[in-house]
Amino acid sequence: MPHIPLPEGVPGIRSLALQYPESGKYLYELVQILLRHESPLTPAERELIAAYVSYLNECKFCYSSHAAASRFLFQDQSGIVDLVLKDYQAAPISDKLKALLTIAGKVQEDARQVSEADVSLARIHGAVDRDIHDTVLIAATFCMFNRYVDGLATLTPEGPEDYLPMGERMATKGYVPPVIN
Amino acid sequence: MPHIPLPEGVPGIRSLALQYPESGKYLYELVQILLRHESPLTPAERELIAAYVSYLNECKFCYSSHAAASRFLFQDQSGIVDLVLKDYQAAPISDKLKALLTIAGKVQEDARQVSEADVSLARIHGAVDRDIHDTVLIAATFCMFNRYVDGLATLTPEGPEDYLPMGERMATKGYVPPVIN
Repeated sequence: MPHIPLPEGVPGIRSLALQYPESGKYLYELVQILLRHESPLTPAERELIAAYVSYLNECKFCYSSHAAASRFLFQDQSGIVDLVLKDYQAAPISDKLKALLTIAGKVQEDARQVSEADVSLARIHGAVDRDIHDTVLIAATFCMFNRYVDGLATLTPEGPEDYLPMGERMATKGYVPPVIN
Repeated sequence: MPHIPLPEGVPGIRSLALQYPESGKYLYELVQILLRHESPLTPAERELIAAYVSYLNECKFCYSSHAAASRFLFQDQSGIVDLVLKDYQAAPISDKLKALLTIAGKVQEDARQVSEADVSLARIHGAVDRDIHDTVLIAATFCMFNRYVDGLATLTPEGPEDYLPMGERMATKGYVPPVIN
């Protein structure tokens, strides 16, 4: 049960954006910029960073939905997304993305831990300023979404199948503030 | 030294919003909505929640600037803001605000800890749905700002006197995205 009245049957952030559209509008526009607009990171990679940070925060709604979006965008038949969530250092992804996930993980735990050495390692593997910036801001932003969604105890669908259409919608349509039909 | 090139001499979030205005615009608009638009909580109280969460995250730039804004708005001659940061349960504030700060602190640490009992206590002391919502979203949002500012090692002014004009500007002008002069 959510801690405050929210539209029934609507999960996670969507229920909050429907009930509180004034802030919801900016939250959706922010995430659309961060995960879809211009960046050296692909939308699939950015969704993966969002899923990884949400997984570390144990926010089931956010990690399940963004993992589903990332799987769809990666056309992920080899299970890259799940391998990253399990152990990204052992996953078949680029060294650049591994270095960025290390930075994202430190932002999640305590952002002051991000070191010059972490940033240098990412640069050695090809990261530019914008990769570093976008990784830190995406990680920080999902520390917000995870807390907003879980702090108000919003509806969290249980089964993996519930997240499939959600991930496809996020992947193909992006982030558009929901409206009451 | 910031981890990426940012405008020299510009502190904290302002340097990031100048260098990355596309996301900066939405971050400023979000915080303006949260801390200044309609809410049962006064701007002084909302700045205090922002300062408290930033203090828990040990983000010096954010807690110093929002504490300064809160002091200005409270016309704080009796040191309420500093008493709250030190020990809010012993501070001369309402029981409602104490209950909301408990919720904000749980959102900062692990938002899943916010319990029905925490929310009920706030309601007993007069909190309505919107107080609960705004408290959780402000706390979550500052968990983002704190990480963004510290994860990129932005410039943090040292002395309390550096934050006085900043707090007054935030209190009187609100949050307007910075532009390059």
